[in-house]
Amino acid sequence: MRIDELDTPVLLIDSDALERNLQRLAKMTEAAGIDYRPHTKTHKSATIARMQVEAGAIGVCCAKLGEAEVMAANEIDNILITTPVVGESKIGRLMTARNQAAIAVVADNKQNIEMLGSIAQLSGTKLDVFVEVDVGQGRCGVPPGPEAAILAVMIDNHPWLNFSGLQGYQGKIQMLVDVEERQMQTIEGLNKLSKAIGEVEKKGLTVNIRTGGGTGTLPFDADRGLLTEIQAGSYVFMDSRYGGINWPDANTPPFEQALYILTSVVSKPAPDRVVLDAGLKAASSDHGPPMIENGVGQNYAFGGDEHGILTMTGGEHVPWEVEDKLRLIPSHCDTTVNLYDQYMVIHDKNVIDVWPIEARGRVQ
Amino acid sequence: MRIDELDTPVLLIDSDALERNLQRLAKMTEAAGIDYRPHTKTHKSATIARMQVEAGAIGVCCAKLGEAEVMAANEIDNILITTPVVGESKIGRLMTARNQAAIAVVADNKQNIEMLGSIAQLSGTKLDVFVEVDVGQGRCGVPPGPEAAILAVMIDNHPWLNFSGLQGYQGKIQMLVDVEERQMQTIEGLNKLSKAIGEVEKKGLTVNIRTGGGTGTLPFDADRGLLTEIQAGSYVFMDSRYGGINWPDANTPPFEQALYILTSVVSKPAPDRVVLDAGLKAASSDHGPPMIENGVGQNYAFGGDEHGILTMTGGEHVPWEVEDKLRLIPSHCDTTVNLYDQYMVIHDKNVIDVWPIEARGRVQ
Repeated sequence: MRIDELDTPVLLIDSDALERNLQRLAKMTEAAGIDYRPHTKTHKSATIARMQVEAGAIGVCCAKLGEAEVMAANEIDNILITTPVVGESKIGRLMTARNQAAIAVVADNKQNIEMLGSIAQLSGTKLDVFVEVDVGQGRCGVPPGPEAAILAVMIDNHPWLNFSGLQGYQGKIQMLVDVEERQMQTIEGLNKLSKAIGEVEKKGLTVNIRTGGGTGTLPFDADRGLLTEIQAGSYVFMDSRYGGINWPDANTPPFEQALYILTSVVSKPAPDRVVLDAGLKAASSDHGPPMIENGVGQNYAFGGDEHGILTMTGGEHVPWEVEDKLRLIPSHCDTTVNLYDQYMVIHDKNVIDVWPIEARGRVQ
Repeated sequence: MRIDELDTPVLLIDSDALERNLQRLAKMTEAAGIDYRPHTKTHKSATIARMQVEAGAIGVCCAKLGEAEVMAANEIDNILITTPVVGESKIGRLMTARNQAAIAVVADNKQNIEMLGSIAQLSGTKLDVFVEVDVGQGRCGVPPGPEAAILAVMIDNHPWLNFSGLQGYQGKIQMLVDVEERQMQTIEGLNKLSKAIGEVEKKGLTVNIRTGGGTGTLPFDADRGLLTEIQAGSYVFMDSRYGGINWPDANTPPFEQALYILTSVVSKPAPDRVVLDAGLKAASSDHGPPMIENGVGQNYAFGGDEHGILTMTGGEHVPWEVEDKLRLIPSHCDTTVNLYDQYMVIHDKNVIDVWPIEARGRVQ
């Protein structure tokens, strides 16, 4: 099938760009002598998770238990759930999924650790647990002081839990545009993680795995040599927000745009304005509107759930007519992907594959 | 099952509130002597569409062809697709779905009308077409002048198309807080529709159906007596944005909140702050963050794709601990529903039913 025969709006993956991004992260981490455990929250796809493992990833990250269940059911092994799994029902589900794949989880709370231990014991399988440290995000995680050591010891002392290491991740600094600011904040966060590692080591424990980092802070995370593995996720697809940040070597942004929304013009109410069939249900808005590909002077504005309104700056005429198709670059890849059930994988002018987004909507 | 046994985040419908909302719209429109064709873009559920028809609706609206296909396959009849259906592939799908149910469509473009006619002829079934008039939304639709009459005549002259009437809808004024401002803008829009009706009637055609209006403008739409049917959608669920607007009789807001997100506390990093398991993938952000139910002094902020951060104003202690569950009121019901695959229908403390959200993600 040709791309221009697709019904719209539809999510496209440029297969060549995806493959190049996969290889670039493999090379960058290999050069830095660091592992990577890419975050599947970006793509929510077992197919891409498999490609990441084939490219050299040691395993994957999942944001929620529901995503980990999907990956485990699709033969992806060595999974880290990067947010706490709380309550009897979910921990029971975790231990069930643990029968299909190695799954570790983070924790930041005594009561939660006790319940993880009790249910692990009931299931007869030891569970790997990381302590989450708040290195600046202000979300989950214990402060980078003695609290981390207290939880690490508690896990280590439990006969049905393994203390696997520490997680320190900051999503909010990944997309800082200024490269020096991003570097400085990465170092600040890593210093906090280093302090927590010191506290844990004082108790005689080893912090074998130090997991964190992301697409934006990758160069600085790798430089420091503190993390043993990088959780980059967005590098597979990129988006307009990531596309707008600066990199240490300005001439070589390490990754390229691989994800697009194909949309159609459905109305042309004025020569300088058309209405597209992609609105809030086709492109996430939490990082602002999507961009028109190569869209100099062409501005997209959301026109409700089902529409986008493309207006030319300066009253110029729109170069498209009703039925024409054009491509948008999402502003936030993770949340845009969550709106779709499948990817159309493209090469040149053709659709060469369809990949299900199995973990879409798995928020539990 | 009890509500507090549910894994979270999960979407809840208060069945009593939903039923009262359904009955209230039925009574209000009956008193005004006007039909209603509720918009399924809010709930995306064949079950609720059936309840609306049983309560007295003459049919339903769908925003996209994909939604109409779902409703038609679930025996919902008399469907109006409120946005243009463009291109050979989609019009072909429309005519296929037309075999299962009466489906009408809006149009605002000559080329589109020609193609609707050609494919209707090929399929051997006459198609009902409305002309969409831009009454202020600035999105799709012809201006409220002679253009509407030109398209109406074109449709009427085509042997395989029926001219059914005019659509004039303004989403953007539905949630204007000030009741007089909302009334004024409703009247302005209806005046434009009235002008378009006049232009069409000058050509000797009758505008049998005048469709438009919504939950917020309902009292004024009904008063004017120009529309023959109301497209209200959000009235079934309401949301924090609609809940914040004023009504002509301030003591009786006509509809009540029936939709909630149940979420759990997964981390308590500080006495005045907890982290919830509902973020951008559990509550839409295009109308701002969701509200905590009865949450005086308790502010929800998005904490990324999977988390919300609840902070007490003034440093008070949060009344919840890890594992506790609480309810959020979505800021925008339509786009929040689009994130979920099913509703948990509740009564008192129990889950009494599970309804699939069959039309979720049907953006094509």
